Amino acid sequence: MLHLKTSMATLLNDRDLEFQLYEVLDTESLLQRPRYAEHDREIFDATLNTARDIAEQYFAPHNQKGDANEPTFDGKKVTLIPETKPAWDAFAEAGFLASHHDFDDGGSQLPEVVLRASMAYFNAANVSSTAYSFLTIGAANLLKSFGSDELKDRYLPPMLDGRYSGTMALTEPGQGSALGDLRTLAKPAGDGSYRLFGNKMYISGGDHELTENIIHMVLARIEGAPAGVRGISLFLVPKFRLDDHGQPVERNDVALAGLLHKMGYRNTTSTVLNFGEKDGAVGYLVGEPHKGLTYMFQMMNEARIGVGLGAAAMGYQSYLHALDYARERPQGRPVSNKNPDAPQVRIVEHADVRRMLLMQKAYAEGSMALCLYASTLVEDAHTAPDESERKAAAELLDLITPMVKSWPSKYGVAASDLGIQVLGGAGYTRDYVLEQLYRDNRLNPIHEGTEGIQGIDLLGRKLGPKGGDGYAEFQRRIEATLSQAAGLAGCEHLADELAQAQETLKAVTSELQKQLAADPDHGLSNATMYLDMFGKVLVGWMWLKQAMAAEKALGNGALGSEEAFYRGKIHTARYFMNWELAPLDGYARLLIAGNRDNLDMRNDWF
Amino acid sequence: MLHLKTSMATLLNDRDLEFQLYEVLDTESLLQRPRYAEHDREIFDATLNTARDIAEQYFAPHNQKGDANEPTFDGKKVTLIPETKPAWDAFAEAGFLASHHDFDDGGSQLPEVVLRASMAYFNAANVSSTAYSFLTIGAANLLKSFGSDELKDRYLPPMLDGRYSGTMALTEPGQGSALGDLRTLAKPAGDGSYRLFGNKMYISGGDHELTENIIHMVLARIEGAPAGVRGISLFLVPKFRLDDHGQPVERNDVALAGLLHKMGYRNTTSTVLNFGEKDGAVGYLVGEPHKGLTYMFQMMNEARIGVGLGAAAMGYQSYLHALDYARERPQGRPVSNKNPDAPQVRIVEHADVRRMLLMQKAYAEGSMALCLYASTLVEDAHTAPDESERKAAAELLDLITPMVKSWPSKYGVAASDLGIQVLGGAGYTRDYVLEQLYRDNRLNPIHEGTEGIQGIDLLGRKLGPKGGDGYAEFQRRIEATLSQAAGLAGCEHLADELAQAQETLKAVTSELQKQLAADPDHGLSNATMYLDMFGKVLVGWMWLKQAMAAEKALGNGALGSEEAFYRGKIHTARYFMNWELAPLDGYARLLIAGNRDNLDMRNDWF
Repeated sequence: MLHLKTSMATLLNDRDLEFQLYEVLDTESLLQRPRYAEHDREIFDATLNTARDIAEQYFAPHNQKGDANEPTFDGKKVTLIPETKPAWDAFAEAGFLASHHDFDDGGSQLPEVVLRASMAYFNAANVSSTAYSFLTIGAANLLKSFGSDELKDRYLPPMLDGRYSGTMALTEPGQGSALGDLRTLAKPAGDGSYRLFGNKMYISGGDHELTENIIHMVLARIEGAPAGVRGISLFLVPKFRLDDHGQPVERNDVALAGLLHKMGYRNTTSTVLNFGEKDGAVGYLVGEPHKGLTYMFQMMNEARIGVGLGAAAMGYQSYLHALDYARERPQGRPVSNKNPDAPQVRIVEHADVRRMLLMQKAYAEGSMALCLYASTLVEDAHTAPDESERKAAAELLDLITPMVKSWPSKYGVAASDLGIQVLGGAGYTRDYVLEQLYRDNRLNPIHEGTEGIQGIDLLGRKLGPKGGDGYAEFQRRIEATLSQAAGLAGCEHLADELAQAQETLKAVTSELQKQLAADPDHGLSNATMYLDMFGKVLVGWMWLKQAMAAEKALGNGALGSEEAFYRGKIHTARYFMNWELAPLDGYARLLIAGNRDNLDMRNDWF
Repeated sequence: MLHLKTSMATLLNDRDLEFQLYEVLDTESLLQRPRYAEHDREIFDATLNTARDIAEQYFAPHNQKGDANEPTFDGKKVTLIPETKPAWDAFAEAGFLASHHDFDDGGSQLPEVVLRASMAYFNAANVSSTAYSFLTIGAANLLKSFGSDELKDRYLPPMLDGRYSGTMALTEPGQGSALGDLRTLAKPAGDGSYRLFGNKMYISGGDHELTENIIHMVLARIEGAPAGVRGISLFLVPKFRLDDHGQPVERNDVALAGLLHKMGYRNTTSTVLNFGEKDGAVGYLVGEPHKGLTYMFQMMNEARIGVGLGAAAMGYQSYLHALDYARERPQGRPVSNKNPDAPQVRIVEHADVRRMLLMQKAYAEGSMALCLYASTLVEDAHTAPDESERKAAAELLDLITPMVKSWPSKYGVAASDLGIQVLGGAGYTRDYVLEQLYRDNRLNPIHEGTEGIQGIDLLGRKLGPKGGDGYAEFQRRIEATLSQAAGLAGCEHLADELAQAQETLKAVTSELQKQLAADPDHGLSNATMYLDMFGKVLVGWMWLKQAMAAEKALGNGALGSEEAFYRGKIHTARYFMNWELAPLDGYARLLIAGNRDNLDMRNDWF
């Protein structure tokens, strides 16, 4: 195999993260909250630096190797490339599995937004090796929030220190996105525990040898439970059952039926698991019976930010790699220069290459801004001093979660796609990481709820025919930003464009709500288009916030590379308002008119 | 590895090809031309059936195997999976390498559009095994058009009967799309031949053992030639030189430096070739010195239709696979049905799945229609009875070639992308061919001129500040269709929408031409956006033509599955006019205003 030059881009633009955290989001104000009384900005920065260093040292170097050598299963044991384990250990030893937990639980009470920004480095470095850690964090959160003290005592500490890993076992072969149809059965064993029988599919991290034990958080139906989503309970099912001393000793009745082979995300095992091939897998009810889906949904908002963030980080990597390449690669001349003896220019000098890089920047940094903003809502929902502030944050988060998950997923893949295109033929070869990022990133519009599911969630559940408090809060906040921007030199045009898009969105929303009230099937039939439109307004808002922070810094006299950084932010915001919001009016007309093209298409017409 | 059900979709919808060829394009009218006096429709249909049968029998079965087992090079020899050779042979033995050539040359004088439609089956079945044949056809066309009788006598017959294959060797490592900078040197050897020295990269089919010989059509610069595009000549460089009896005996000084490893298209070798590591590779001038690029450009229109067609066929395959899956897979219920005991429905019943299938259908069938229409222009440019008709067809073809290449490439990948999304998690696994189609199809926006190059070609060269005859011809023809449609029941709305888009395109074109005259760098800085807009109007036109043909058939009383077929055409045309043309106004405003966002972005602002 030829080894051409592989550009080594940085994982993320550190300066941008600093900007987002401290100039756009005012993360330092969190230090005034009691929970963070012992923190200071140095701790936040040190955490970010540690994350970046570990991601660079333990995760990035085997990203392409893990892709080329996917996990194998010999019928007994799953084998991963050996670099996976030291990466897992380094992550755990740095305390990242526990960092947002309380000091009392061995955590470091790290604010959500600092944790998320730190995690973005791992996603950028190697999403598939990182997944084991992220799934463990999610499973531990679920256990922490809803498990009994006994369960928590036995299982939480080793999940926080890295001895055990975790999974989320929802999907089954016959059910897909329709969780209400899941069939895994839980029979009471008489001793308070249950025996589980059923098959789960697409379970990421469902088997491996990285940890002493794997804790599956399993959705199942207790014998006799009602049909549909109201009969689903949550169970903790360990790969190895613990003895009285809390040691994992006996193999539970959970068998790996096989590994699924994917287009990307390859170093994450995707498994088919059989529960109860023999006497039933021993499982422990988490929380109350029949509340499993409610618990899952409470966690889902945070898990979905994780998907958005991963997609943003991979789009970001694609952008930085393409930018490096475009700055180094000489080819061609300006279109107006017909002199064949003139020297070649770097391809970043070609307007069409700049167009692609500008789109990438708009998608990557805009997605990152959105995910970090959503993280501040998670934070505020938990630690804002005022009850009404907590409630407002929770409601707004609830509303925007479908976009936080889906917009970076859709446009992160677009950024990865553009990354290939900037490199041209080189980008299509496996000598560059661009094609892997494109493949890895393609999972994000699928898992944790497809794009179509997010659209229905937004319009059918989060908004519904009446709107709701989250929507009102969104209006209040975006209008506040628009008012501020209207008075800020350099931002008026941006604010005008966004205000117009916001009016369009309002008109569409109100019309779709009427359609929804009249006929849910009709009202929801264009939900994915609406999701995209709402996402664009939301990310436009994020770009306006960034442009405002940049104008402020320029007003304070930023010079040199600092000035260039801020000018780049403002110019990208301008690009976004001009080009990304441009198609909204056209789509709005169709949505307002209640277009029925999707609904009326018939199976036999295809 | 688990083997889940892999759907076996048909390669293309035969009924659709029949519709396109005989109801939309009136292919039978070609029979009146002297060149086709000995043909009849049965011959056309038999050709299509043969193509489909060979594609199904010899190409489709090893498509996924070729992807999983890419070609290897041990330093001496390239090895392909063994199924590749019988496929090559079957293609050659059926006469497809020669079928469009004259009877006198051993061809069957097949019309271009029937040949192209036949080739689409091979693209749908296995694009990477097919590439060897297609490259050979292209190289032979070049030789046939511009080579001396002596060269043709020696090299053409074995390229038409399958003993030799061919390549197009343009790109070099240091030059990419900027062909004017190529450095491969040709020194006169004194005996009329030349010795070539240089490196070529991304040469598809550049080495393999499928054929006795490989004929490279190489762009190089004769010693002392002018710099830039005006100093490039075309050479025929065989892998093995022929003896006096025309037998390939002595290895020429052409060495395989290595294979490139790609994301997709894997069973096509992509090579780095070194010419003249020792005494120089023996090459023969094709045509006159310094006219190489002119020759290449004359061939390029036809080669670019080939890329568009391949992209269309792969998008089409993605659509048919997704459709099969959606019709079989039960999951969920209508959104208005809250009863968990109600039976699951097939996912084609969900409006959002129909939306995705409808987009796929619009992209795949629309792209196919565009490529077949372009093929009729190739045909007319050569065989139309009237000189003015030939000229008009050639000019229109010249104008629309950038869209014929780029629109199916961009939206074919989009159709493949949607195919994955319809399947969800299953589509992301390698148990289904969707992810391979997505990877394979991603090459098309890159090779034979990237999307950015096509935009500049369209606006800067094909249109320029003044427009040109091709553009006027386009206006005449689309307006003729619009007039006809305006009087046809069921098509008025479609015609209105398209007419509006056409007016928008005209306004944008005229404004961009002014910008181009004033400042070429500015005028061309949004060329890719313009390309996309022009492509949408063009494909909208194709959809209007299809809807008109369908309305006509319905008027004649089509029933049952025939009626459903036509209704599907009309409904998809409606979807296209509504949703795909919707964003044009928004973009037009920016283009007309001479938006400078791409142009003004600065390197240090990224």
